[in-house]
Amino acid sequence: MDFKEIKDFLLKCEDAVILTHKSPDGDTFGSAFALCRVLRSMGKRANVLCSDGFPERYSFLYQGCEGDNTLIEPKCVIAVDIADVTLMGKNLACYQEEGRVDLCIDHHISNKHYAKKTYVDASASATALVLFELFKFMEIDIDLQTARCLYTGISTDTGCFKYENTTQKAHLAAAELIGMGVDFSAINRKMFDLKSQSRIMVEQIATSNIEYYFGGKLSMIVITKELVVKSGAEDSEFDGIAAIPISVEGVKMGITVKQRGSHTYKLSVRTTDEIDASQFCKSFGGGGHIRAAGCEIHGDLDDVRNQILSLAGKYFEA
Amino acid sequence: MDFKEIKDFLLKCEDAVILTHKSPDGDTFGSAFALCRVLRSMGKRANVLCSDGFPERYSFLYQGCEGDNTLIEPKCVIAVDIADVTLMGKNLACYQEEGRVDLCIDHHISNKHYAKKTYVDASASATALVLFELFKFMEIDIDLQTARCLYTGISTDTGCFKYENTTQKAHLAAAELIGMGVDFSAINRKMFDLKSQSRIMVEQIATSNIEYYFGGKLSMIVITKELVVKSGAEDSEFDGIAAIPISVEGVKMGITVKQRGSHTYKLSVRTTDEIDASQFCKSFGGGGHIRAAGCEIHGDLDDVRNQILSLAGKYFEA
Repeated sequence: MDFKEIKDFLLKCEDAVILTHKSPDGDTFGSAFALCRVLRSMGKRANVLCSDGFPERYSFLYQGCEGDNTLIEPKCVIAVDIADVTLMGKNLACYQEEGRVDLCIDHHISNKHYAKKTYVDASASATALVLFELFKFMEIDIDLQTARCLYTGISTDTGCFKYENTTQKAHLAAAELIGMGVDFSAINRKMFDLKSQSRIMVEQIATSNIEYYFGGKLSMIVITKELVVKSGAEDSEFDGIAAIPISVEGVKMGITVKQRGSHTYKLSVRTTDEIDASQFCKSFGGGGHIRAAGCEIHGDLDDVRNQILSLAGKYFEA
Repeated sequence: MDFKEIKDFLLKCEDAVILTHKSPDGDTFGSAFALCRVLRSMGKRANVLCSDGFPERYSFLYQGCEGDNTLIEPKCVIAVDIADVTLMGKNLACYQEEGRVDLCIDHHISNKHYAKKTYVDASASATALVLFELFKFMEIDIDLQTARCLYTGISTDTGCFKYENTTQKAHLAAAELIGMGVDFSAINRKMFDLKSQSRIMVEQIATSNIEYYFGGKLSMIVITKELVVKSGAEDSEFDGIAAIPISVEGVKMGITVKQRGSHTYKLSVRTTDEIDASQFCKSFGGGGHIRAAGCEIHGDLDDVRNQILSLAGKYFEA
């Protein structure tokens, strides 16, 4: 389908619910609230749904787009930034049956085409960028709050224009959106710079246990169950630290080892472009991407560490 | 002076040295090496100078622009991104005398106009952005390595398009430069994500001592001389941590207290927009900007902490 067809679809649709993915991020929310605002500006009823609710962190996107209680029975279901029905989450289970979603707008190449109509632009940095271009095609007057939503989607999915998926179109869209008065520095501070007190503590604990091997080419952080309990933080709060070991200068392979059971450890492996992380993890029965992969190893911690270092040695001592 | 005058100047100049500021950053180096490459492409001799030498961190900017040993006696001195002669550093002292610099290209509103000719665009996000526009005006064919230099200057001075000084022009320039094939994600990883082993350790030590007051509205990190010695890191490596206390969610005032002498403590105060940091520091005989200021307090550590909390109480308990 093309923009003309989406335009016709949106002009005709009534009483729409807009679905976002579970563990919501700036792109799924930014896209959904931008679309919700545009539909409402066209005189339609529309609501955004999320299996995980609406965290305070993104409250600046919801402003002026609160839930419409008069929308009881949706006539139209639109998914944004959701590659697969399983990503909708358990509270949106009723939308996961075949044929329930009328339109899906996405930028993931892995999109499963579960909706009746799907528009995927895998070259787009963010779903919000697809919507930005769609709104321009539709000659919609993008208001400031809609611009904030679209900017947030593009900025968050590109790591603030830092990552490889940043395109010329992403910068050109950002130029237009900040020209509309988006308070981008406050948004970026909130999205990228602010950390919770417990996140600060979790990072502090993680980095206090960082180990270096092979002349600093391998770094490893081990998070035991005992350490998690001692910290008082939620177990899930330690999930974000896999990016730390590979962020050290000179490191080619960064490994986070997290205890799962008394003799089970989960590895998150990140590598620079010289090493294939998925190949490394395959040796332990795991897998993943070339620069980010995972696996599980069984044994006591000393065993696990030795197994890791023994295999890594083949990479670094070659 | 305008772009036409700079163009005429550059066309006429021979044997140029290009000065960068001390404690060099991506903008002064990116600007200098971009200009050096352009002058050399015009068949002229040109070298870049820096009082602090050329750290490995920026080596990707120097590629193919190594020092020209045949340039002994410069006939033309150009300063880039240097607002004041005092910022040249002690190894460039000979260029600090009046009338020594022929041309200064800068974007700092505080520029002291010490050069014979000065071009300052205070609305530009970076000096590299001024040069990008100048080169386009001059119809210079920007090659890939020059594009990398210009991109790095713009990206680093805007915190990767994150800070308030990011303009539409910065995004438009980035769009053009990445279109030329700049490996921007590798550059940004190097400039923003990578940390040295000792930096990781310094942050770990700093955050292990973070204190919260007034319901988390004030956070404070105290770095004593004893702590620095125990860490084994250089004293100067602790300078970058002033950004940490204010990066905690809910914090309105983040203070870093660093011991200078046995009874002397230096404060770095950062605030969100509700509190005037310079007013706070003025009470202790210091000063600075509205969101970033500093001062010194004398006394033992308990005294100093009490003085800080007592004054801060007037802000938070009001």
